[in-house]
Amino acid sequence: MKTEGRNAVRELLKTDAKIEKILVENSMRDAESRAIVEKAKEKGIRLQFAEKAALDRECPGRRHQGFIAYTADYAYADEDELLRAAAGKDGFYVVLDGITDPHNLGSIIRVCECAGVDGLLFADRRSACVNETVMRVSEGAANHLKIARTGNVNDLLDQFKKRGYWVTGAELGGESIYGVDFTGKCVLVIGGEDTGIRRLTREKCDRLAEIPMFGKVNSLNASVACGVAVFEAMRRRRGL
Amino acid sequence: MKTEGRNAVRELLKTDAKIEKILVENSMRDAESRAIVEKAKEKGIRLQFAEKAALDRECPGRRHQGFIAYTADYAYADEDELLRAAAGKDGFYVVLDGITDPHNLGSIIRVCECAGVDGLLFADRRSACVNETVMRVSEGAANHLKIARTGNVNDLLDQFKKRGYWVTGAELGGESIYGVDFTGKCVLVIGGEDTGIRRLTREKCDRLAEIPMFGKVNSLNASVACGVAVFEAMRRRRGL
Repeated sequence: MKTEGRNAVRELLKTDAKIEKILVENSMRDAESRAIVEKAKEKGIRLQFAEKAALDRECPGRRHQGFIAYTADYAYADEDELLRAAAGKDGFYVVLDGITDPHNLGSIIRVCECAGVDGLLFADRRSACVNETVMRVSEGAANHLKIARTGNVNDLLDQFKKRGYWVTGAELGGESIYGVDFTGKCVLVIGGEDTGIRRLTREKCDRLAEIPMFGKVNSLNASVACGVAVFEAMRRRRGL
Repeated sequence: MKTEGRNAVRELLKTDAKIEKILVENSMRDAESRAIVEKAKEKGIRLQFAEKAALDRECPGRRHQGFIAYTADYAYADEDELLRAAAGKDGFYVVLDGITDPHNLGSIIRVCECAGVDGLLFADRRSACVNETVMRVSEGAANHLKIARTGNVNDLLDQFKKRGYWVTGAELGGESIYGVDFTGKCVLVIGGEDTGIRRLTREKCDRLAEIPMFGKVNSLNASVACGVAVFEAMRRRRGL
């Protein structure tokens, strides 16, 4: 898997991800670029220097900013391990039910990492997975967040509930998110771009909550809605 | 300008936008599609029915869902009129300083419309403008929101301040947005994707505010950051 872009590669170097090689544009000589090269050398990562054209060929139509890192496929967290960890703390987890657009998934991963969410889970079928596009949009956040896939979202929610978690589905028509108690053990379910939360999954939710809206269109992009809901939950959990 | 997609065309029909023609795929016979066609007829809009292939040619690589509407270019609100209206109320306005990605602009327009923002302003140069991509991403929200362009963002902020507005710049390193007073006359400035808020514009801000973050990457996409900040401001303005 490729990670493209100077910021993304710098973030990648801060993680334990196994980097097989970093391709660096010859002309990158500014302080920030040199710091990245030094960090890679420290970690014993193979560096390969090349002309801009070679990097352009590796990611046609996208920005590499002089740096492309090559890693093994994304290492998902183990679902059972994540559930075991969840049982032992008052965690906050986000579960996606049918997000299919890689840009939305990447942006949601960035939201969850920035907000300090304990883990993100989604189904291993009919859902976007962590690929190069997702990695790039997430600005490397995928490497800092525990992300697990599950065979069945509904069974997963049951597992969370058995461990004392309250499940809130983000959906239009629910109570106001500003009235929901987000303390303690929480799971927030975000529905797919077109489908929303599916019926059986909705029935697993202990409550449905919506972001109050005041316009005529009144539908937010999935990653923006996730951002507003997750940051509101985190604000309250932290008493901000 | 083209508006593509069933939802976008349906939303467009609710506005006063001058629609020159709507191209409809022959096979669209479900109740929702018929309702759109009826509504267009009521408004005296010219309808043209065609095969799917004809619609595909009009928007290569994108989804039209059977409907494409053709309108005159986007009608921006007048900057002076918007400022006059602002003077007479405790408004909340968003000013963009250098957002260049049409997807971000479209998503920000959707955020502002859904949150009930009074108006959105940005520079007429070095900035994305309302084109077909923006219109599509905004899901038609651009037609329900007052959007004005300005020759100079710094002069614009002076004009707002003269009318009693407090200007808050959304920027990392500022005070927590959760401590900022968002009541009364407010302008929120959102910086560009790569550049942030430019120095001279930052100096015009009465205060800088950041969304507290708890991860390692700690940078949100511009439209997600705008969503979190605008909905937080609106929550407080409405006492939610």
